[in-house]
Amino acid sequence: MREERKNNKVKVIIVGSIGIDTIETPAARHADILGGSVSYASTAASFFTRVGMVGVVGSDFPPKYKKLYKKFNIDLAGMHTIEGKTFRWSGVYEADMINRRTLSTELNVFESFSPELPVAYRSAPFILLSNISPDLQLHVLSQAVAPKFVVADTMDLWINMTRGPLMKLISKVHMLMLNDSEARLLTGEHNLKKCADTIRSWGPDYVVIKKGEHGAMLISSKGVFIVPAYPVDKVVDPTGAGDLFAGGFVGALAEVKKKDEPGIRKSLLYGSVVASFGVERFSLDGLRRLTRENIDKRLLDLGKMMHV
Amino acid sequence: MREERKNNKVKVIIVGSIGIDTIETPAARHADILGGSVSYASTAASFFTRVGMVGVVGSDFPPKYKKLYKKFNIDLAGMHTIEGKTFRWSGVYEADMINRRTLSTELNVFESFSPELPVAYRSAPFILLSNISPDLQLHVLSQAVAPKFVVADTMDLWINMTRGPLMKLISKVHMLMLNDSEARLLTGEHNLKKCADTIRSWGPDYVVIKKGEHGAMLISSKGVFIVPAYPVDKVVDPTGAGDLFAGGFVGALAEVKKKDEPGIRKSLLYGSVVASFGVERFSLDGLRRLTRENIDKRLLDLGKMMHV
Repeated sequence: MREERKNNKVKVIIVGSIGIDTIETPAARHADILGGSVSYASTAASFFTRVGMVGVVGSDFPPKYKKLYKKFNIDLAGMHTIEGKTFRWSGVYEADMINRRTLSTELNVFESFSPELPVAYRSAPFILLSNISPDLQLHVLSQAVAPKFVVADTMDLWINMTRGPLMKLISKVHMLMLNDSEARLLTGEHNLKKCADTIRSWGPDYVVIKKGEHGAMLISSKGVFIVPAYPVDKVVDPTGAGDLFAGGFVGALAEVKKKDEPGIRKSLLYGSVVASFGVERFSLDGLRRLTRENIDKRLLDLGKMMHV
Repeated sequence: MREERKNNKVKVIIVGSIGIDTIETPAARHADILGGSVSYASTAASFFTRVGMVGVVGSDFPPKYKKLYKKFNIDLAGMHTIEGKTFRWSGVYEADMINRRTLSTELNVFESFSPELPVAYRSAPFILLSNISPDLQLHVLSQAVAPKFVVADTMDLWINMTRGPLMKLISKVHMLMLNDSEARLLTGEHNLKKCADTIRSWGPDYVVIKKGEHGAMLISSKGVFIVPAYPVDKVVDPTGAGDLFAGGFVGALAEVKKKDEPGIRKSLLYGSVVASFGVERFSLDGLRRLTRENIDKRLLDLGKMMHV
């Protein structure tokens, strides 16, 4: 009984967008599927720990998607529903399944979103601030009480448009995660190690530079750690891969015994593995029947691929 | 005395181009520097074993470059000098130091090159057929007597122009090394693991897919091995990186105790490390003062970057 209560306590809170996506790849088109950074990240984290999701949907949000979150045992106290339409995004992937073109973005209820944390979330030890405006990320962070580990993601839009708040945010987080091109844009450096060193000089102990299909790199005071992408047989939809990676990481970190460099490295590999399952299907379909056992098996495989 | 004789015996033969390059990067321009696939590959291999270089130069070939090969203890019995001008190439790198544009290619003496192996080379156990026409690669291979391990490199030109001889070559080698885009062009598959499986069905036990700054992947019956690129502080000139990788690999393989999967994996990491030193300077300058000790130290570093 006590164990159960303990397990039900939210350990990781994740804030970001909840969206309805329409995605076209050279092979298929799927309309009105569940997306958004917090959907992907929370689901990924849910395989490891109890997650509280912070986001907003409109009154049109399909009940089946809310049910899906619950199936993943995600706490929804931080999910707000307000009158109006849910955030929508649509895009088309090129044949390489990497380059994509945004067809439309409708912010809808997301436009006026100012996330308030439920009281029970405020002392959660782990926070993932997915890719939303740095002002919102700061607003969430200001409500948290002495978090142990805060990860933030960002994107080119915020680097270009809201650099001031972004720099303030960066100074307050333990880890910044961003793409290679974003790291270069943010720092003005080309070499990724130098990018990371510059960002580390602004505050974060850890910088993770994501390189899409080529995996990622962790840079810390202990040096570089190479995080390979698990080579899947077929990438069906890469949408949300970075969010799955971040969510899987923070979820695993919450449960790993020591939050030291080896703990962080191992958690990043977990993130990579969860992301690899996610890209094998559209939306969250690659995670629906996924078990912790499958994840651990693939983690072992990935370990063998890094071992002489 | 006996040991010395043994050490002087050519163990690896490498065939390819010897060129005089003129290279421009956003930071510098260097004219008439030593290049060519066999220059890079042989020098890389020379840190591990005794290498016999098979190539052709014109009567204009600067004696200082011949001296440089000798400094690396490369056997030059297979290097032919014929009347005329040495092969020349010039190119310009973009700011990303990856994309490059060829300004000019002069085949010169290379046009009529038909490599004959010195008798002493014919029983060399290891052969690297660097990127030249598959007909020439086959011609060299036909002179070899029961080699233990043959590696071939290739490029888009041969895939497009001389597919017949290339397919014949592929069926005869133990390992094919090629870039990701070339693997896709050759097989018509997008997924790199599938590309490798298709190529393996044509004969080679091992396929290495090179991904530039993102390292490489080995695919064999034992699965995938991820070969990271060592993250250098500054890439000064990436020319020849793939050849350094291949040469370092085959040199290390000649000296590694067992030529099994772990031996091949370790040798690939050696190749990656030697390539990382090479790209830190123009031409072969990154290898001039390099020692085996530096190589082993960086190999250890790279191992740490792959270890949780």
